[in-house]
Amino acid sequence: MPDLVASEALSSVLDAIDRDMDGSIARLQDLLRIPSVSTDPSYAKDVHRCAEHLVADLASIGLDATLHETTGHPMVVAHDDSAGDDAPRILYYGHYDVQPPEPLDEWIVEPFAAEVIDGPRGGRIVARGAADDKGQLMTFVEAIRAWRSVHGRLPVRITILLEGEEECGSESLEPFLESHRDELLADTCIVCDTSMWDENTPAITSMLRGLVYIEATLRGPGHDLHSGGYGGAVVNPANALTEILGQLHDTDGRVQIPGFYDDVRPVSPEQVAQWNSLGDADALVLESSGASATFGESGYSTLERLWARPTCDINGLFAGYTGEGAKTVIGATATAKISCRLVADQDPDRIEQSLRSFLEDRTPPGCSWDIVSFGAGPAIRVPTESPWLAAAANGLARVFGREPVLIGSGGSIPVVGSFQEILGLDSILVGFSLDDDLIHAPNEKFEIVCYHNGIRAAAAIMEAIAAVGTD
Amino acid sequence: MPDLVASEALSSVLDAIDRDMDGSIARLQDLLRIPSVSTDPSYAKDVHRCAEHLVADLASIGLDATLHETTGHPMVVAHDDSAGDDAPRILYYGHYDVQPPEPLDEWIVEPFAAEVIDGPRGGRIVARGAADDKGQLMTFVEAIRAWRSVHGRLPVRITILLEGEEECGSESLEPFLESHRDELLADTCIVCDTSMWDENTPAITSMLRGLVYIEATLRGPGHDLHSGGYGGAVVNPANALTEILGQLHDTDGRVQIPGFYDDVRPVSPEQVAQWNSLGDADALVLESSGASATFGESGYSTLERLWARPTCDINGLFAGYTGEGAKTVIGATATAKISCRLVADQDPDRIEQSLRSFLEDRTPPGCSWDIVSFGAGPAIRVPTESPWLAAAANGLARVFGREPVLIGSGGSIPVVGSFQEILGLDSILVGFSLDDDLIHAPNEKFEIVCYHNGIRAAAAIMEAIAAVGTD
Repeated sequence: MPDLVASEALSSVLDAIDRDMDGSIARLQDLLRIPSVSTDPSYAKDVHRCAEHLVADLASIGLDATLHETTGHPMVVAHDDSAGDDAPRILYYGHYDVQPPEPLDEWIVEPFAAEVIDGPRGGRIVARGAADDKGQLMTFVEAIRAWRSVHGRLPVRITILLEGEEECGSESLEPFLESHRDELLADTCIVCDTSMWDENTPAITSMLRGLVYIEATLRGPGHDLHSGGYGGAVVNPANALTEILGQLHDTDGRVQIPGFYDDVRPVSPEQVAQWNSLGDADALVLESSGASATFGESGYSTLERLWARPTCDINGLFAGYTGEGAKTVIGATATAKISCRLVADQDPDRIEQSLRSFLEDRTPPGCSWDIVSFGAGPAIRVPTESPWLAAAANGLARVFGREPVLIGSGGSIPVVGSFQEILGLDSILVGFSLDDDLIHAPNEKFEIVCYHNGIRAAAAIMEAIAAVGTD
Repeated sequence: MPDLVASEALSSVLDAIDRDMDGSIARLQDLLRIPSVSTDPSYAKDVHRCAEHLVADLASIGLDATLHETTGHPMVVAHDDSAGDDAPRILYYGHYDVQPPEPLDEWIVEPFAAEVIDGPRGGRIVARGAADDKGQLMTFVEAIRAWRSVHGRLPVRITILLEGEEECGSESLEPFLESHRDELLADTCIVCDTSMWDENTPAITSMLRGLVYIEATLRGPGHDLHSGGYGGAVVNPANALTEILGQLHDTDGRVQIPGFYDDVRPVSPEQVAQWNSLGDADALVLESSGASATFGESGYSTLERLWARPTCDINGLFAGYTGEGAKTVIGATATAKISCRLVADQDPDRIEQSLRSFLEDRTPPGCSWDIVSFGAGPAIRVPTESPWLAAAANGLARVFGREPVLIGSGGSIPVVGSFQEILGLDSILVGFSLDDDLIHAPNEKFEIVCYHNGIRAAAAIMEAIAAVGTD
């Protein structure tokens, strides 16, 4: 167990953070009120405005902040070298874009009003992006603000990279990392976009699933048809699509795409035992999802299925008439958005090709496919034996009074792979959201207590990382 | 072959129709410009306004026209007894409500602007409802207008019933027929809502398929979930829905709902031979649907599948994220609109119950169904040996110069069954739309030549029916 007593320098920063929580909340609200939905072109100006807002805010703290245009949404980069040339440098990563807010009628407040409402753990900010990822990126921004306001300088050198395309495929990220490699190099990297185990237990995520995402449209007749006049005479793409997608899983929940499991390694019994020791994952999943039963591939525990098994899910489905009431129509097309979560050693390109072939091999007579890719990224494993990760764990322990647990994540953070590949940097994945934060869903929220502890932890981690450099 | 020479009285009416075609077109355009979409509550006022418009127009011809409120959309009823007490009475039926216009972006003109554009057969009116059924109901309205304007009276007594709920389940129809039985009784009934065989060949439809239509929503988790955080841990209703719907048909295209074919009678070889003699139905279907291949239950010709075999079609499908781009979401629900076209002797209630059981028997753990009915009606056979039908055929022959062919229809016109049951009246199904009129689809149209011939034919049929009464 490391020394859990904060230094005098850190204590005064933590005090400043506590005193200024109202300001930290207000600044997060300002950020959340910009509807930076990256996947929908109609929000493009808002996404840009959000980047401008962040540059201005970072500059106001005293950082050297720049907005970099890309072929998509802008990158925000900021530096602070006040710690001096000998101090280690942290590269911080977060993303300022958010998911679409739909379905709008299920929100209890406006998704971009960023209201603070009471909950069982005290206040919570309800807004699209509250936990994913604006609330999280603001934890390190606010920690930096506090260090600078109290001491006029930071204990470490830092670079901040804030992306605006995380929710829409990160097209610009790798070209940007290539072209700004020297500017972004650092000793370690902290990615703040993951969860705690529970509200009292911090976590460092060491395994992330990868992702393949496509949209597939099956085209049949030349236009919509009356189902009386044509039903039974020509193919109905909606019928055909369900027949094809209905074959994606067998009755044991195993994905039937050829070769899908070829490169999937079994999880060691020790790993499974460690995960089982974390607590009642099924209860957490049921509580936070509102589902009445867990479900999935036979023969694996819920944490194994989430962290170590690949999936194939339909994320969107539309065909024919989707309004109120009845319309006796055979739609000319039927569309599915389909994604696969990948585990270590699965090749995203190969899986995408297999998924495409799975669909194409089942094309009904007289039909054709339009298939669009929305990006692909491999699963990630982060090495857990590094002084930087140990320092981050130490910082977390100082604030939470207990060691963080090492967990996996069912989600994907492709930037971690890009950092490994292009910058040669392993990321430390430290985040402060909770499983019931309703990420990507209506009423997404971020607990004020998590935001507060996240800022305190970010401040403590900076000092702990500074100590690595001087050991 | 009957006498194909028009009487002097009819000739002058046909001349008047020819002279006033511009007026007939303008009046149809006025009617089409009222967006009377009955299935969507947001159009309720327009539906009512459309009924008011028709009452005013019928009154302007000199008919005794009344708008009757119902619990749904209004009924329009009009009478003309100018032919005197000895003349036979025709009950005319049409519907003034229309299908929703969606998808809007596929229309080449505004769906409720009722523009006349040039086509290969001359002018055509492009609008939602042009052929189904406003253009068709206006054929007899305009014929009545012409008879009255030339002769000051009609050759037959008439009652007109115009419904506003044909496209949304006809909830009010049967109660209205029951409560207005005496007012609606007639010697014969003409329903104008069907097709010609082709533009030169009139048709009388003697078989209509029935319909069962439901909307089924599968509910899983309590709210939308992040597909990374929950994919593989809880049921994805979109996956489950496709797995269930994918079982609706076997590889031979046979519907797998238990008992679905129990009451389906085989078609006689003579009937099949008669249908085969009508012409190249596959070519008509491919041409008008824009499909590149016919498709359906193995072992039956296209006309058999359309007219004499039941179907099960998905008319609408929606789940998860349906906007542009990628959203890594597991939707809390997944919905399908599903209909079955029924043939003679299938019991709609029994088929609906079997369909519901088919879905419920496959409910995944932790899921539940919300299933809504949108109406059910049996298939209809109309007796083909009646003097009224022979008279209608005679009227058609006078205008088209050839006998009408007897055909089936894949669509459903539930009012025909209600007329049989409640009024004891067999309907004569005479219509003037073409298979390529894009009924229920974007760019629905009605050919001016069909409208013109339809008005002329309606005028001729009135005289031919009058002759039955005096034979």
